Amino acid sequence: MASSLLTRQLAISLQQNLRLAAPGSRYVSKTATKTVSEFEYDAPSMKTAVPGPNTNHLQLYLSLGLQNVGAIHFFCNYEESRGNYLVDVDGNRMLDVYTQISSIPIGYNHPALIKVMTNPNNVSAFVNRPALGILPPENFPEKLFESLLSIAPSGMNRVQTMACGSCSNENAFKSMFIWYRNKERGYASPSEQEVGTCMINQSPGCPDLSILSFMGAFHGRTMGCLATTHSKAIHKLDIPSFDWPIAPFPKLQYPLEEFVRENAQEEARCLEEVEDLIVKWRQKRKPVAGIVIEPIQAEGGDNHASPDFFIKLRNIARKHGCAFHVDEVQTGGGTTGKFWAHEHWGLDDPADIVSFSKKLLTGGYYHRDELQPDKPYRIFNTWMGDPSKNLFLSEVLNVIRRENLLEEVTRSGKALLQGLYSLQTQYPHILSRARGQGTFCAIDACSDATRDSIMLKARNKGLFMGSCGEKTIRFRPALVFKEYHVHQLLNILNDILAEHK
Amino acid sequence: MASSLLTRQLAISLQQNLRLAAPGSRYVSKTATKTVSEFEYDAPSMKTAVPGPNTNHLQLYLSLGLQNVGAIHFFCNYEESRGNYLVDVDGNRMLDVYTQISSIPIGYNHPALIKVMTNPNNVSAFVNRPALGILPPENFPEKLFESLLSIAPSGMNRVQTMACGSCSNENAFKSMFIWYRNKERGYASPSEQEVGTCMINQSPGCPDLSILSFMGAFHGRTMGCLATTHSKAIHKLDIPSFDWPIAPFPKLQYPLEEFVRENAQEEARCLEEVEDLIVKWRQKRKPVAGIVIEPIQAEGGDNHASPDFFIKLRNIARKHGCAFHVDEVQTGGGTTGKFWAHEHWGLDDPADIVSFSKKLLTGGYYHRDELQPDKPYRIFNTWMGDPSKNLFLSEVLNVIRRENLLEEVTRSGKALLQGLYSLQTQYPHILSRARGQGTFCAIDACSDATRDSIMLKARNKGLFMGSCGEKTIRFRPALVFKEYHVHQLLNILNDILAEHK
Repeated sequence: MASSLLTRQLAISLQQNLRLAAPGSRYVSKTATKTVSEFEYDAPSMKTAVPGPNTNHLQLYLSLGLQNVGAIHFFCNYEESRGNYLVDVDGNRMLDVYTQISSIPIGYNHPALIKVMTNPNNVSAFVNRPALGILPPENFPEKLFESLLSIAPSGMNRVQTMACGSCSNENAFKSMFIWYRNKERGYASPSEQEVGTCMINQSPGCPDLSILSFMGAFHGRTMGCLATTHSKAIHKLDIPSFDWPIAPFPKLQYPLEEFVRENAQEEARCLEEVEDLIVKWRQKRKPVAGIVIEPIQAEGGDNHASPDFFIKLRNIARKHGCAFHVDEVQTGGGTTGKFWAHEHWGLDDPADIVSFSKKLLTGGYYHRDELQPDKPYRIFNTWMGDPSKNLFLSEVLNVIRRENLLEEVTRSGKALLQGLYSLQTQYPHILSRARGQGTFCAIDACSDATRDSIMLKARNKGLFMGSCGEKTIRFRPALVFKEYHVHQLLNILNDILAEHK
Repeated sequence: MASSLLTRQLAISLQQNLRLAAPGSRYVSKTATKTVSEFEYDAPSMKTAVPGPNTNHLQLYLSLGLQNVGAIHFFCNYEESRGNYLVDVDGNRMLDVYTQISSIPIGYNHPALIKVMTNPNNVSAFVNRPALGILPPENFPEKLFESLLSIAPSGMNRVQTMACGSCSNENAFKSMFIWYRNKERGYASPSEQEVGTCMINQSPGCPDLSILSFMGAFHGRTMGCLATTHSKAIHKLDIPSFDWPIAPFPKLQYPLEEFVRENAQEEARCLEEVEDLIVKWRQKRKPVAGIVIEPIQAEGGDNHASPDFFIKLRNIARKHGCAFHVDEVQTGGGTTGKFWAHEHWGLDDPADIVSFSKKLLTGGYYHRDELQPDKPYRIFNTWMGDPSKNLFLSEVLNVIRRENLLEEVTRSGKALLQGLYSLQTQYPHILSRARGQGTFCAIDACSDATRDSIMLKARNKGLFMGSCGEKTIRFRPALVFKEYHVHQLLNILNDILAEHK
């Protein structure tokens, strides 16, 4: 259904690949012939209200078999979606600045990614998913250096792939616990008592260690991660948890440049509380093995802090012997204008662990050498990631470099933030606290009801946005989001706000 | 490198698909022209010892960037692997009865799966990974009914997809906790105190509930799952855990038919302990919300129990108001001769939750209606699975039905188990306790050193097996493992045992 354009495009691509892939030779990726802006649509186009009748029909159908369909916005026609435009099953074409919860790096159906799929030499990577930890494919080291290791944050030369963001953080936490206990033991072998008690979930084998996290944080929903997530009650209610310390995250005033002194005081208050908590939990005999933090709290409401705050936090971690884990699952991948948001802090050597997922297409985490577990199988699972995602990531990185997308993000991000400042000046009774880095931008509405109403109206005019925190709109466009799209977005928002009473 | 055969096969397949995929029409999958037995090799073929020089070289290279390479057996040439035969980077071709830790359903490079990959109408599902919980693709309901829901265990009409086995069990546990607390609250809204305390990890919002598991169990390695895993200390050492009850799993004597009375006594002892623990943990104010169990403990040493044991356990769960969760991550997908191992118990309505992953290619869990959370976003994450895996699964199920693979598994399994019985009769000082269901078979060596030595010698003769427990060899062939392959396996084992001193 409605797939003729894509089918033609594919047919050409497949035929080219068949000619290029001579038997016995490795296919070498050629420069994509088109950039997204040549490939994609030029504007939103709406046929029905959203959700339209086809979505309503499919939702009913799916509700017969799926656990819960209450979170579904609409069903999508991914075949017809292109670049920044997401097409739904009712033929509505929307400018998408939420991008599958910030997980689409270079837009829909990018020609370069279609080439990866249709390259016969890649078929085996999709069809035969390996147990990466024990039987990696021949090209795994090469692809790892080409993709994840080519963008490793400074000071980190090791990576462990995982399937998703939660698994990445769970295993990062485990690495920190193992590192902490090895230090405490003086790198000696575990005692018989430790080996025996760990099998029955008891101390000292399963020690009372903790991870310090921040109020408003989101680090995932599996039970270890969830103990460090404090953004919304709906995520946590009824699930058993750990007694781990939770520090306040700075509540800053925006624009940051205009409230430097006030914000510095607020950050100092939070840092003091962090140190107090570390001491208190040590006294409670649940010492803090690691501190985990997002460079910008995303799900919790797009909360920023200054480089100075993070630098001082890193020093506190070092002073107290805790590992420092930067969770870049949402901020990583270029959306702040640098590949890793923590690179904005200006430290050479900022963290012990940096976790990622979403735009990186595979989950995983980088770490320093000393965070490497002392034995195999301590950090392990069946799949340990998925090499087919590394193939796509290599090509995404090629596109980012070839099309200078980080510069584009910086340029579009400035235009977006300027536009949001103008809107909040024009509509001060509705909007406030515009903030952002790169295109990782947000603005608050005066209430959650107003925020939700603006978002629904925008969707019906062809602009699909996400929410976070209590009353925040978050912008998470793909890296191919240009100034041209910024103006489309601002025009739609302006129309809605002008009509808003 | 060495990919000419596969490239030719692909070129033909791609050209056929291009002709079939007329613009605007949906491509309808045709019967695969070849079965695996026509496609694959006919025997192992060894060129070097394993690991060979190319593996050693690649392992050194990978050790520069990956966290830990100590668990790697060898690097693989997946392009050249076929059916039951795994080819390594040194050109060694091995009969693979471990199949990527039991996660390859119908062998390597099955022609039917290559067709899925090379069908242009499927490209979009690989290139645009959706946030399934909010923006599912148009064909998601159809594919779900065609794949996962077509094989739903009896009494279960709802499914939730997830990315991997650990995430499946973590979310299954969460569903049981939510269900249990909703019952306790009488399905009323949570109190303000619950909403407030859950944000800071405290009771009553994060209640002291527990999951009862069994000694020797393996349910995954994220922190919730890990609290129910008790197979090996290396998995658990140094990781904080929960004070949850752990019951003994029956230690049976094999063959089961010859020790019916002794085994029934042992099972009764374990069931009594289960009830005692449920009462004790209720008194400790950490009530058991759910019981989780594998139909055959796999990683823990291939430990079986009788249908009677499981039926009685299910009744205990019902009596005490605990949910009953059957973890079929390793046993599911046909390897025991039925699609779900728990179908051998002969219950119409055996469980509240059945989790899966591995051979199903996607993770997830089935559940009864009453285990459905009361609100959206309580069970949620960014990806909630991966629809491209559902495409492969649909085709795997087609192959299983078309080629009657469950019957084949039953036939091959009988031949394998008979062969293992003969070997242990012939070599009673080396082998014992042969056991199995379908091809999900195992045998114990007299020591872990002997087990490891047999496995290494077998690998050098072209037979790749897995281990589990303390001194067990586990057999986990794909569903395309025929009697022909059984005899290859037994011949190689017999040669090694005859030489063994």
